[in-house]
Amino acid sequence: MDRSAEFRRWKAQCLSKEDLSRKGSVDEDVVELVQLLNGREQFFTTSSCAGRIILLDRGINGSEVQKQNCCWLLVTHKPCVKDDVIVALKKANGDAILKFEPLVLHVQCRQLQDAQILAVRSTHGLEVPLTHKGKLMVTEEYINFLIKIANQKMEENKKRIERFYNCLQHALEKETISMTSYPKEKIKEKNNSSYTHKKKRNPEKACGKYITEENNKELENDDHDDPGISVTIFPEDY
Amino acid sequence: MDRSAEFRRWKAQCLSKEDLSRKGSVDEDVVELVQLLNGREQFFTTSSCAGRIILLDRGINGSEVQKQNCCWLLVTHKPCVKDDVIVALKKANGDAILKFEPLVLHVQCRQLQDAQILAVRSTHGLEVPLTHKGKLMVTEEYINFLIKIANQKMEENKKRIERFYNCLQHALEKETISMTSYPKEKIKEKNNSSYTHKKKRNPEKACGKYITEENNKELENDDHDDPGISVTIFPEDY
Repeated sequence: MDRSAEFRRWKAQCLSKEDLSRKGSVDEDVVELVQLLNGREQFFTTSSCAGRIILLDRGINGSEVQKQNCCWLLVTHKPCVKDDVIVALKKANGDAILKFEPLVLHVQCRQLQDAQILAVRSTHGLEVPLTHKGKLMVTEEYINFLIKIANQKMEENKKRIERFYNCLQHALEKETISMTSYPKEKIKEKNNSSYTHKKKRNPEKACGKYITEENNKELENDDHDDPGISVTIFPEDY
Repeated sequence: MDRSAEFRRWKAQCLSKEDLSRKGSVDEDVVELVQLLNGREQFFTTSSCAGRIILLDRGINGSEVQKQNCCWLLVTHKPCVKDDVIVALKKANGDAILKFEPLVLHVQCRQLQDAQILAVRSTHGLEVPLTHKGKLMVTEEYINFLIKIANQKMEENKKRIERFYNCLQHALEKETISMTSYPKEKIKEKNNSSYTHKKKRNPEKACGKYITEENNKELENDDHDDPGISVTIFPEDY
């Protein structure tokens, strides 16, 4: 069986499997993005999360690494309301943490060159301890303040998903027209340019081919808080 | 000029450049790791941060994306003391945030197969808003509580750096003995196994070849808070 057929078979197998996430389905805000990718023969997604606000409670004996005693008090993929958080916090008997987690998307690629256009993780988060051994460590006013910030991040995350969708669509269209068999030398060139032209901030270029560049920039920013996206590639043809 | 010579030249050029980070030197806790990598002909590091606690002040008009008005009130690569944070917070006139950022390491590789053993980002962080328009939103007791958590994360991060160093050293030694010219088919197999055997938790395997697997697991954990490491590869020979 040739490479392409092997990939097609593997893709079909993965996509036909039951969705094993707690939710059991793809998050609404990334359905289009996931469909766009899965509709192209060279890609398929293995997991995704549109972004979420979660409130976790970690058992008193649970270290950062042990997760056995960790339970979810609240999870939402939409902006959340203070009262829901306050109510959920009452159930905390360990160390509760509020987190905002942005879009995560894992994509498998048929070829390494396809991976150049691909998959994404935003570095734009929030992780705030709220209770200690069940005792609330902050005021209601602070929780209100925090939820506003988490909701703003949720909004910003949604805009980024849209932006990424548009960039990706644009990149895939261009590829269909001009990259059917892309000369290897060109790819090499592009790849090198991501090392040398690090200071470019052109958003057009940050899409598509320049994702690795965004990633590379992370350490150069003074606060590591890169507004861009970072790459997670799983190409098949190493 | 052949590939290897080209990579050597590029490596020499990069390593001879002035260190452009604010600190101007490699963080103490990753010096050995950086030296281990740079001592191998197939790798070199382009940037690193051992992990740090930082207190940032974001200007009142500065959105999450704009960084112009962002200033550092405090930064430390060692555990920090409450009083230093309290003093630094007095200088905040915008929205101050305390962050813990774990190890980040960017590594360039001569060949794609080398990238399989490589570079790392831990997902183990902290990001807590503390002031709003200069007004402190939490109590001193909370700051104390938070600093203890940040310092614990710093300790845990240090242990992970040591663990990663040992794993990497082990992997590189094994490679020198057995992988001088690794058959392509084998690499392919290994690569596939990272998709299919996702549930393995053997720490030996989490080192080296299985880094992508750790990364892949991220979404399967209930709280995304992967204790492992995630890959950032910049192989030269796409």
